[in-house]
Formats: sequence, structure tokens, C-alpha cells
Amino acid sequence: MLIALFPGDGIGPEIVAQAVRVLDALAIPGLTYEDGLVGGAAYKAVGHPLPPETLEIARRADAILFGAVGDPDCDALERHLRPEQAILGLRKALGLFSNLRPAKVFPELANESALRPEVASAIDLLIVRETNGDVYFGEKGFRTTADGLREGYDVMSYNEAEVRRIAHAGFQAARARRGKLCSVDKANVLETSQLWRDVVIEVSADYPDVALSHMYVDNAAMQLVRNPGQFDVIVTGNLFGDILSDQASMCVGSIGMLASATLNGTGQGLYEPIHGSAPDIAGTGKANPLATILSAAMMLRYSLNLPEQADRIETAVAKALADGARSPDLGGTMTTVEMGAAVLAVL
Amino acid sequence: MLIALFPGDGIGPEIVAQAVRVLDALAIPGLTYEDGLVGGAAYKAVGHPLPPETLEIARRADAILFGAVGDPDCDALERHLRPEQAILGLRKALGLFSNLRPAKVFPELANESALRPEVASAIDLLIVRETNGDVYFGEKGFRTTADGLREGYDVMSYNEAEVRRIAHAGFQAARARRGKLCSVDKANVLETSQLWRDVVIEVSADYPDVALSHMYVDNAAMQLVRNPGQFDVIVTGNLFGDILSDQASMCVGSIGMLASATLNGTGQGLYEPIHGSAPDIAGTGKANPLATILSAAMMLRYSLNLPEQADRIETAVAKALADGARSPDLGGTMTTVEMGAAVLAVL
Ligand SMILES: CC(C)[C@H](C(=O)O)[C@@H](O)C(=O)O
Ligand SMILES: CC(C)[C@H](C(=O)O)[C@@H](O)C(=O)O
Repeated sequence: MLIALFPGDGIGPEIVAQAVRVLDALAIPGLTYEDGLVGGAAYKAVGHPLPPETLEIARRADAILFGAVGDPDCDALERHLRPEQAILGLRKALGLFSNLRPAKVFPELANESALRPEVASAIDLLIVRETNGDVYFGEKGFRTTADGLREGYDVMSYNEAEVRRIAHAGFQAARARRGKLCSVDKANVLETSQLWRDVVIEVSADYPDVALSHMYVDNAAMQLVRNPGQFDVIVTGNLFGDILSDQASMCVGSIGMLASATLNGTGQGLYEPIHGSAPDIAGTGKANPLATILSAAMMLRYSLNLPEQADRIETAVAKALADGARSPDLGGTMTTVEMGAAVLAVL
Repeated sequence: MLIALFPGDGIGPEIVAQAVRVLDALAIPGLTYEDGLVGGAAYKAVGHPLPPETLEIARRADAILFGAVGDPDCDALERHLRPEQAILGLRKALGLFSNLRPAKVFPELANESALRPEVASAIDLLIVRETNGDVYFGEKGFRTTADGLREGYDVMSYNEAEVRRIAHAGFQAARARRGKLCSVDKANVLETSQLWRDVVIEVSADYPDVALSHMYVDNAAMQLVRNPGQFDVIVTGNLFGDILSDQASMCVGSIGMLASATLNGTGQGLYEPIHGSAPDIAGTGKANPLATILSAAMMLRYSLNLPEQADRIETAVAKALADGARSPDLGGTMTTVEMGAAVLAVL
């Protein structure tokens, strides 16, 4: 089993290193690693945020453990050379269309949220975000209007096959959880959303055991603040999912704790913390590696079919927290390496 | 001065009636009203959510006081006949491009928010949302892909003139407040956003006294939860503004308190509460009319150039709240009419 390690920029290398320590401690037979350059680090080394060699490693791998990309030095580059293109390019090249972001409050951390503790502690939801289509990957560019004005444009679209496969992912996730699926769209304004809604309803016929509801994205953004505990699984498109999943993660409070998986149809997946590259604290030892360690657990569960090992990691993280392990983002003083050690100690 | 009264659906007529009582109490010389049908009510009466007669009244009026549209009976209609088309149609027909949504916590109501009181009470922001362009009004429809699949599509775009006028609105609003403007886009993915950002930066040259920053929409959705007190004025496009302004209003907590204005370049404006038609409580007297009363105050300020009268209303609402006026959404038992009376009593 080959794991591609793509640490990327900023705190990426530090947090991925801790996840690797944890994986090593599990002594999983046959697990091998291969390192690849992505993001600003790759641009600086070889002139492209997603070099062909990196893509090759990704294609060969069973799973990718990804740190973070983003580098202020690259802000002025043309879009196709910016660090973010690494993540967009990997999603597209490998067909990684199903981004899963669980948001749940660890009891010890309920006070980290800006929401009232009683609101925050009720959060236990999963956002299933489509990541291969929508306005992200449609035709886009600059043009001149009939009046000679500069105009930027991006075409939003979904076809029924794209919606169907992510709808199935949503229904299946809901079935494995509390049986509730909320599909979020803007069908009162967008034809893309109308097609989305129609297809989700068609797919729902296969899942009579799942309770399906629909919500407009503006209302969903309100409900995620007002009463996030009402949600089990949310399925939505690429753009709305980008916004809502970041919002939901902040409702949880401790963004340094949240993991994500992005899967294709073959079980291959990319695993990454939902936080960014945090260049301001890179190299200071202040980064919290737990989101990356929990992403490694998701990797064992979804791509490597090792659910018991995944459970071991998740239990160890919960125990380390209960024992008081706290990095600066959680109000403590432990370093990145000490946080990793705290998990290892429990394992 | 002609005010178009468009009460619309659900609780719309009840709340608009209270705002009219308040306006009447001010005995403003020369103020006249004309009623018009919009939304589901208009569809049921004459077959269209925005009949030509209504549009005529709107064109003649100095300002429109709008209740709410939305009627579950109309959910199955084709999109162009649904109640929401009234509001989209008015925005477009009258060129109402600048939607202003102040979000601020009344001290008495800081406990209504799902956010911690110390986070919520720091909120004092204004969202300036563009409402004439973006993916709302681009080419849209259904088509068949090369593989014979159904596809929905919507073209997102902004040209420089559209961005420039809303950017000016944002900078001017910031100048009249605390001098901070945050422009929200998704320039790391969208060319529409890249043009947006470029033009906002160009316009900023005219406002050296305003501190401009840029934020990606996903980060903005996070920051509005984590630390909404950091924002003064946010300027953004139609779609992102739809989502973020609803989110921000829910951060305030009492959505029954929030007013909005949508202006064109001539001072004409549409004024409406940000909440919806709430069909479930229509006719029960449970609706809170304060958001509509505060919208009437915005109308006096922005379209009728009567700032003192606007102040009088706003002060009266604050006083009524301080005196304990509470509708059910605010944890009280007062009816719609009693809430209106409480404001009148102070006036
Ligand atoms: C970096 C950016 C292009 C990306 C996205 O918008 O998808 C990120 O925000 C995410 O959510 O993974
Ligand atoms: C009703 C709907 C079309 C409208 C919008 O999306 O603009 C509403 O949500 C709003 O914000 O005024």
C-alpha cells in the first residue's frame, strides 16, 4: 500500500511529519511512502505547483496524505501557477469528486467555539461536497462587452451524472449515520441548482430509509449558526460546499482539529486537514497536528480499509485531549512535536 | 412623495401595516401611498408575481416598502412564475443594484444570538451586496451534453462598470462609518472574482482614507462566526452577498429585527425586512414588525432625505425594546399590532 506524502507549504511539513509518526507507530505491514512536491514549495523548486512527477506519484498511490498549500510569496503569480492549483489539479486529475468533512465538537473543546456551548456541542454533521464540477471547472476567462468593458466570467454547470454520483455518496453517508440528508442548492435562482435538485430527488428513490430535505444555501448558512445540531449529512455542490464547510468547521471552533477526505470512485483518496498553511506560524512549533493525524485515520478507514487502525488513532486523539494535550490554538502551550508525542503515548 | 406599498405574501401584509401606522404617526407632509400586488398574492390574483401594474407603480414611486414574498402553494410553478421573481424582477427593472444590510445587536437582545454574547455584541457591520448582476442574471438554462446527459448551467459574470458602481457604494459607506472596507470574492478560483478584485483596487485610489482588505468567501464565512466584530463594511457580489448577509443576520440572532435597503443610482430604493414571508405564522399575530418598521426608517433616510424622521423611528424602536416590548421571536408574547403600538407609544 503506497501513501503519497505531499506536505506542501507553511506548517504542512511539520504536521504531516507528526501524522507519519503516528502511522509508523501502528506498524501496518506493507505500508510504504513516497514524497512529492506541491504548492508554493513545488513552484519554487521546479516552477509549477503540481509538477508531473508529483502527479505520477499521486496516480500510483492508494492514498495521498496532504499537508496544506498557500504561500504569500506566490500571491502575485498568474492563477495557474498559484499554490491552490495543486489541490484543484489533484482533485480533477484523479477524479476526486467526493469531499467529506465531518464536523463534531470534542467535549473537551466545546468552549473553543464562538457559538454558545449548548449550540456548539450539538454539532455532529458531515458535509459531502462535490469537488469535480460546478463553477470551479467550467469555462472561464476575460472578455470585452459590446460597450468595450472588461468582463470576467465563469460558467457554472452540473450534469445529471455528476449530481447522481455525489447524491449517492450523500445518501450512503446518511444511511451509515443518522439517516438524514439535507441537499443544499439555490434552485430559486439557478438552473444548475434546479437540475441538482431534480436529480437528487430521482436518486432518493433508491434510499427510502433516508429522510431527504432541501434547503437554499442562504438559509443553510443561517441554520448552521442558529441550530447546527439539526443537520446530519449535508450534500452540496463545489462552491456552496466550499463556503458552508468552512463555516461549519468554524462553528465547531477548533479548526486545528478537523480532518477531511476527498474520494474518487475507485477508493483512492486525498486526506488533508481543513485548515490552511498558516505561514505566520510555520517553523515555530505552534501548529496543531491533530487535524492531520485525524486525516490519516480517515485515510486508513476510507482508502486502506483498515477501520480498526483508524479507530485506534481516533481514540488516541480523544484520549490525549482528555488528558489535557493542548496546542496554542486550543489554549495550551504544547508544540507540534509534543502534540504528536501525546497521541503516540496513548497508542 | 409617493411610497409604493407591496406587502406580498404570508406575514407581509401584517408587518407592512404596522410600518404604515408608524409612518402615519410622523405626519410627513406630502407623503402618499399606492398599493401593489407582488409575489404569490399577485400570481393568485392576476397570474404573475410581478404584474405590469405593479411595476408601473414601482417606477413612479420614490420608494417601495416591501413586505415579503414566498408561498408554498407556488413551489411547483415554473421559476418565472414563482413569488421570488417579484423581488428579482424589481431589482433588475429599476436597476436596484446596491443592497445594504446593516447587522448590529441591540444590547437588550444580545442573548438571542447563537453566538456567545461577547462575540455577538461586538457585531456592528454593514453588508453592501450587488444585486443586479452575477450568476443571478447571466444566461442560464438546460442543455444536453455530448454524451446525451441533462445539464443545467448559469453564467456568472461581472463587468468593470458593474463592479465600479458597487465598489463606490462600499467605499462611501465605509467612509461614513469606521473607514474599513472588506471586499469578499473567490479570486483564487473565479475570473469573475479576479476582475472584481482588480476593479475594487482601482476604485480604492479614490478613497485613500478607507482601509481596504480582501477576503475569500470561504474565509469570510468562517470569520463571520469566529469574530464578526472585526468587520465594518463588507462589499461583495450578488451570490456571496446572499449567503453572507443571511449568515450575518443570524449571527445577530433576532432576524425579526433586521432591515434592508436596495438602491439604484437615482436614490430610488426598495426597503424590506430581511426575514421571509413565514407562512406558518401568517395571520396569527405572531410576526415581529420591527424589521419592517426599521426598513421604513431606512427609506426615510436614503430615499426621502428625512434623516431626522428616520432617527425618530430608530430611537423609538430602541426605546420600545428597552421598555420590554417582545414578540414571540424575541421570547415575549406581544402581537404584531401590540409591537407596532409599543413603537407608536414612544413616538
Ligand atoms: C484553495 C481553494 C482553491 C480550495 C477550494 O476552494 O476548494 C479550498 O478553499 C478548499 O476548500 O479546499
Ligand atoms: C428570494 C431570493 C431570490 C432572494 C435572493 O437570493 O436574492 C433572497 O434570498 C434575498 O436575499 O433577497
